[in-house]
Amino acid sequence: MGPQTSYVDLLIIGAGPAGLVAAYWASEYGLDARVIDDKPDRVTKGHADGITCRTMEMFDSFGIAGHVYEEAALDYQIRYWRLNAEGRLDRAQSINSQAAGVSRFQQCLLSQGRIEELLEDRISRKGRLRVERDVETLGLTLHKRDDASAETHPVQVTVRQRGGGMGDENVEIVRAKYVIGADGAHSWTRRQLGLAMRGEQAPHVWGVIDLVAVTDFPDIRQTCVVCSEHGNLHVVPRERGMVRLYVQLDGVSLGAAGLRSEATLETILAAARKALHPFSLECARLDWWSVYQVGQRIADRFSVGGCVFLVGDAIHTHSPKVGQGMNVSMQDSYNLGWKVSGVLKRQLQPHVLETYETERRPVAESLIAVDQETVAFYAARGDHVATRDLQCFRERHYAFLSGVAIQWYDKGSALVYAPSAIELATGIHLGRRMPSYRVINYADARPTELARKLASDGRWAVILFAGDLRKAVQLRRLEETCAALVRSRLLRAPGSGKLVTITASPRDGLPLTGLPPLLYGGENGQDRDYDAVFSDEPDVYGAFTDVYAKCGVDGEKGCLVVCRPDQHVGFIGSLDDVPSLNTFFTGIFRDS
Amino acid sequence: MGPQTSYVDLLIIGAGPAGLVAAYWASEYGLDARVIDDKPDRVTKGHADGITCRTMEMFDSFGIAGHVYEEAALDYQIRYWRLNAEGRLDRAQSINSQAAGVSRFQQCLLSQGRIEELLEDRISRKGRLRVERDVETLGLTLHKRDDASAETHPVQVTVRQRGGGMGDENVEIVRAKYVIGADGAHSWTRRQLGLAMRGEQAPHVWGVIDLVAVTDFPDIRQTCVVCSEHGNLHVVPRERGMVRLYVQLDGVSLGAAGLRSEATLETILAAARKALHPFSLECARLDWWSVYQVGQRIADRFSVGGCVFLVGDAIHTHSPKVGQGMNVSMQDSYNLGWKVSGVLKRQLQPHVLETYETERRPVAESLIAVDQETVAFYAARGDHVATRDLQCFRERHYAFLSGVAIQWYDKGSALVYAPSAIELATGIHLGRRMPSYRVINYADARPTELARKLASDGRWAVILFAGDLRKAVQLRRLEETCAALVRSRLLRAPGSGKLVTITASPRDGLPLTGLPPLLYGGENGQDRDYDAVFSDEPDVYGAFTDVYAKCGVDGEKGCLVVCRPDQHVGFIGSLDDVPSLNTFFTGIFRDS
Repeated sequence: MGPQTSYVDLLIIGAGPAGLVAAYWASEYGLDARVIDDKPDRVTKGHADGITCRTMEMFDSFGIAGHVYEEAALDYQIRYWRLNAEGRLDRAQSINSQAAGVSRFQQCLLSQGRIEELLEDRISRKGRLRVERDVETLGLTLHKRDDASAETHPVQVTVRQRGGGMGDENVEIVRAKYVIGADGAHSWTRRQLGLAMRGEQAPHVWGVIDLVAVTDFPDIRQTCVVCSEHGNLHVVPRERGMVRLYVQLDGVSLGAAGLRSEATLETILAAARKALHPFSLECARLDWWSVYQVGQRIADRFSVGGCVFLVGDAIHTHSPKVGQGMNVSMQDSYNLGWKVSGVLKRQLQPHVLETYETERRPVAESLIAVDQETVAFYAARGDHVATRDLQCFRERHYAFLSGVAIQWYDKGSALVYAPSAIELATGIHLGRRMPSYRVINYADARPTELARKLASDGRWAVILFAGDLRKAVQLRRLEETCAALVRSRLLRAPGSGKLVTITASPRDGLPLTGLPPLLYGGENGQDRDYDAVFSDEPDVYGAFTDVYAKCGVDGEKGCLVVCRPDQHVGFIGSLDDVPSLNTFFTGIFRDS
Repeated sequence: MGPQTSYVDLLIIGAGPAGLVAAYWASEYGLDARVIDDKPDRVTKGHADGITCRTMEMFDSFGIAGHVYEEAALDYQIRYWRLNAEGRLDRAQSINSQAAGVSRFQQCLLSQGRIEELLEDRISRKGRLRVERDVETLGLTLHKRDDASAETHPVQVTVRQRGGGMGDENVEIVRAKYVIGADGAHSWTRRQLGLAMRGEQAPHVWGVIDLVAVTDFPDIRQTCVVCSEHGNLHVVPRERGMVRLYVQLDGVSLGAAGLRSEATLETILAAARKALHPFSLECARLDWWSVYQVGQRIADRFSVGGCVFLVGDAIHTHSPKVGQGMNVSMQDSYNLGWKVSGVLKRQLQPHVLETYETERRPVAESLIAVDQETVAFYAARGDHVATRDLQCFRERHYAFLSGVAIQWYDKGSALVYAPSAIELATGIHLGRRMPSYRVINYADARPTELARKLASDGRWAVILFAGDLRKAVQLRRLEETCAALVRSRLLRAPGSGKLVTITASPRDGLPLTGLPPLLYGGENGQDRDYDAVFSDEPDVYGAFTDVYAKCGVDGEKGCLVVCRPDQHVGFIGSLDDVPSLNTFFTGIFRDS
């Protein structure tokens, strides 16, 4: 008797941050999915820690931003230390860690292990999906219609639950419709697929150490770049009073296969002390340490056969210096997960999966480019790195580093409607994530972040900028829009779309019951959703966001904006242009 | 063999909101305490629901404000409906539910049962204190030194765990040092003490009903006062789409002992429909209903023998109309609980317990007075209640209704230092709760609500407005203040005090390590608390709170403010005046 065979819609290999975000979607869509991980336990120390504001927005859409914020070290200001004219280490400049107004969240730092824990907790609150640990992968085969199940479950992965023997009773053949390989820089999945990583190894070796420090260095609780005559040091504040130090280790090389042949904890601490001189540095508690040499590589392809996809470090490796690794990796899965889920749920046409690589490869390429520049910038020694250079450098890359500016429109994507009437919403960028502003609930006057209505629940959002409803002609237009929307395939497929209305006219102008019933009463007009219509007016205390102006939308005529389940804007059109919306949807949704 | 006798420091009778706030303090101080309740289960429906912004601040200091806010219906605006010139019910005016700037929290509504649940969850996270339910109280005796244990445990309460028989094995004699009676309007504890309630019964009968309504009344999700020709109706939005209706029932009287002799659910619904005419009103789901006649009474005394105290409805009853009942009741316990705990922990002198009644009786009296006026105001029929009257009425009582303006200075209290130099902080009111503003963390630039440092952890807070530390003379002054504070009894007793420093000079002016080590390094100067020193400067994006100006404190010289564990200001003085602070403390703290 051979090993047992089981069938699953989606198999996720690797339960790091990228794998867990894929699992989040699988759980939210109620997929028949499994998540396996090679390691017996969750990572608890070290590794990644930087969280961009866009990742915070994603966490918020999962409902876990509050927990992250409560524990994380928030990063407001970078301080730059260099040798002054007298040759003493001195504070040269303070610059903002994050540009003003990009997001309602602040970038912050929290250990990868804790983030994984929060993601797992969130997933387990929703459904039955749980991480299976200590599961070894033995082989991966892509079947080509050689048996009946190859049509539906083309990927075969042989796995073994460790802890038993090598006998068949611990081996299992998993047949999956789709596989997501989220198994890191040394990805087993990637190797099975025979994909190569292209790129280079930078010459510099850095040490990294997480510790509780006792020091008279006054900026130990904020991000610092210290350029001393004895090499460079980066200070990164962390949760629970910890601090992470990145220390440039010159004259140290890594042994074969990245073995820590020369550098030790003592080497790193000694280099850190030299760089911080004349300030003291004592280690009250060591949490983790490592040594790395930067490899900047990107995978040939991100998927094979339209059914095995790679995410995160499995397709791009780089230095930890730009604080992007975990973010870009999770955003890979955030992009891919809802698409695979939509296809498996028979909502989306399978060809939309091609947009994963068209949308994410440019991000990976930018990441490598920014990282190369960053590594070179920081590897430059001492005081010749001018303060102004640092500021310019940060500003040049800020849009990318924040994560909020990423868009795919100019690269083309079936999931972004290129002929959109972008001139109707000049403050909203087609392809980019929808910005969130404070709107006023029509029914109870409560100020509400628009983002709350765009939670990652798997639904597309049709945002109706309804314009000025005190004008009878505009109200009639809106009624026609609603009539057209009722017939659209988005709202016909249950659970795939949601309506959010933002009026330019104030709540006092027209009672909620004067609006088209579809907007607050469901398709039959009989339900009551008192959390679906909002107005763009001052709150009761007079604070005014002016969402129409910020979004560049005409306050009389309004417009129609459609956000994908990942909050990215897929369509912009006039209220009359539901036909174009239907054209867009016809290209991506399945007939039900 | 008689019943078993057990000994406890504090016995709390009643596990409603007032009893649980007392239990919160007992748990936070780690007291040997018990909470018993007559009922077999927690209330799950109906009863109180209004939460003032001050109560939200208290919840925030317990760490549960986020949970409450997430579930509650937030109350931003009151709409006033009356008959228009054509005799039709019409929206006459909208006024703010809460005056601008009183609190960082908004008043809201959530059922009493859910609040009790959140309080119990919070208490159980901290220690071992749990509510014992279905426990009947059989007798209460105040011992007068007739046995050895009367000295230490003067109160004897005989209780019986229900569910067993009447045999001795289910009966227990509890000897307590202190008892808090939080057992409601029909308080058993009060009757045992032979205390009387003084006051009157208003003639009006009201029905109250919690339901999910289907209606075309457009303001069903916000607070409304509806004055129709068919009597008055109040609409109060609630959590989970529910709404509470208060309906004036004219011609209906209550039977003996408040029996619901005439009014039924149908009576109430019919009266509500008449008042709302011509709008429809259907009940999609009934949650709870009741009928009440307003009794406005206050107890003769709030305590007996210096060891049995009454809180909440046990000492004041009134109508639910001002939305104060649960708030004032919890604030009673919030005031009493830390005092009893401090005495039991041998930090405070027993005479401070007298301040409970001196501080809370004026609040109860104001409550009755406001309630009488409110009931009369709303009982007035139809359109002769002018809109302007409503606005004036709300404005006149707003300070009281918000809960934030309550202060005890003018009534005198051993726990408020009357000779304080109040002119040094003209924006802070001696005796009133300390306002919270956003300050900037000195170590990491993170904006922080001052209130977070004043969490209800049982510690007194010494807030050092340190002034401008760029001036050498001011820094020297601060050093002298610190030297004097180290010798003060507050900081000598471990766990009884905490220091919070707010500089007027910016973070860039002086590194944290340039400040007196006491402020961030503990008494020995060797610890590191990076969350104890703040500056009053713009955040990195330029937003400036100007805390010194808001508090009316001189930006050069600063001052010293001391908050009690309940966040009320007990002392205001100059940085040099630690001697006065010691005088204040000598009168209330025990020698340790």
